[in-house]
This record gives sequence, C-alpha cells and structure tokens, in this order.
Amino acid sequence: MRITLAVDSEIPIYQQIRDQIVTAIATGELTAETPLPSTRQLGADLAVNFHTVNKAYDLLRHEGFIRVNRKSGAVIRRDRTSGPPEPGVADAWQERLAIMLAEALAHGLDRDEVLARTDRMLGAFTAARTEP
Amino acid sequence: MRITLAVDSEIPIYQQIRDQIVTAIATGELTAETPLPSTRQLGADLAVNFHTVNKAYDLLRHEGFIRVNRKSGAVIRRDRTSGPPEPGVADAWQERLAIMLAEALAHGLDRDEVLARTDRMLGAFTAARTEP
Repeated sequence: MRITLAVDSEIPIYQQIRDQIVTAIATGELTAETPLPSTRQLGADLAVNFHTVNKAYDLLRHEGFIRVNRKSGAVIRRDRTSGPPEPGVADAWQERLAIMLAEALAHGLDRDEVLARTDRMLGAFTAARTEP
Repeated sequence: MRITLAVDSEIPIYQQIRDQIVTAIATGELTAETPLPSTRQLGADLAVNFHTVNKAYDLLRHEGFIRVNRKSGAVIRRDRTSGPPEPGVADAWQERLAIMLAEALAHGLDRDEVLARTDRMLGAFTAARTEP
C-alpha cells in the first residue's frame, strides 16, 4: 500500500498513517495476516521519525486493527471477511458516529443529504474492494 | 441544557462539553443566538477548571458553532434552521465521515448495517428536535 502524508494538514501525521491503514483494510487492499513494514522502515520511507509510526501502530493495536509481536512485527489482525465485529465494537463506534451526525445537522446538512453522502462513501469503499 | 460529564471516560472533559453542546444544537434544544453560560459559571456548575470550558468553547468557535465576544460572551452562531452549511463545511465533514465509515467496514460491520445505524441515529435527533 502507498501512504501519502499531507504535512500541512491539521491532522497529525500519526493519525494520517493510522487513517490510511484503516482505509486500506476497508477497501480490501490490506487483508488479515498481512505484515506491515517495521516502524523504522516505514519511518524511513515516509521521512518521519519512527516514534511517529510507533504512535500510529499503538493506536491501531489499541483499536484492534493490528497485532504486534516481537517475532512477526505488526500484522493486520482482521479484515471485513473475518466476520462480524467483536463485542462492544459496533456500539462504541456508533456512539462516535452519533457525534459526527450531530455535527452535520448542527452545521445545517439535512437528513437526506447526510444519508446520501454516507451511502455514496460506503459504495466507494465497496467498489474499491476486491471481494474474495 | 444539562451537561453530564463522565469523569472515567477516555474522552477528554473539554471534548465531552463540546460534544454535548453540538448535540443540543442538532436536536434543536439550543438555537441560534442562545447565550451560553460564561466559562467561569459553567466551570463552577460542572466542577471543572474554567480553562477546560474555555478549551471547549475555543473548539466550538473554531468549528463555527458559536461566536464569542467580550460583551455578549459565547452565543450559538447558527442552528439547523439557519440554512445550508457554509462553503467547505460539508466536504470537510465528509472527509472525516469517510474515515469513520472505513473503521466500521474494517471492523466487520456490513454496508447495510452501517446505513441502518446511520438512519436510526439521524431519526433520533430529528425526533428529539422541536421544529420551529
């Protein structure tokens, strides 16, 4: 996978790395058991400090997207074909979604537009994905 | 409005304050031009440092939900009846939504379930809202 950093973005670099790995899992580009580069390697490739990559990997591990061990390094833990989410994951996600939807309504987007945008984005991920 | 803080949450206090004000705008409980309590007052009510409230108000101002001036203090800047979002707001929101949707798919939620949850939550906000 290719990670592209926007250095002038408000989004911290570690978050951009994390977001792009999550997106690559969603599109099917990264599948379960795929190894990720070492933090030093990816740091060198992206010209960022490996501590920054470490922070991204820590977050991904905390969120359940990857596992990390000394022997195999970081690997993708599950993908969309790994079955339904683990207990509690969907509800925790939905709590955060609720805030995002509140933002959209508070900004003046209407319900139909929010739904249409959601549907369109989901479609984009599904279209990009190579189903097994 | 009533703000309830979860002190043992992973979500920082200033973020909880910000989220609940955004939610109150989305449900229609807070409408345009409604004044918010002063940071000292709200800090005292919630038993948190006023700097924490200040951080929440700063974020809300940066995001365009409130305006703050010395004379009138913090007031709600717009609500859902204020018309469509300001330029760029919907697209910036959608970029963040995309990441959240990627998370859901990467965790194993399927497209239909994500849409159903989105629709349900939007309905909850609309039901709670008192239309003018």
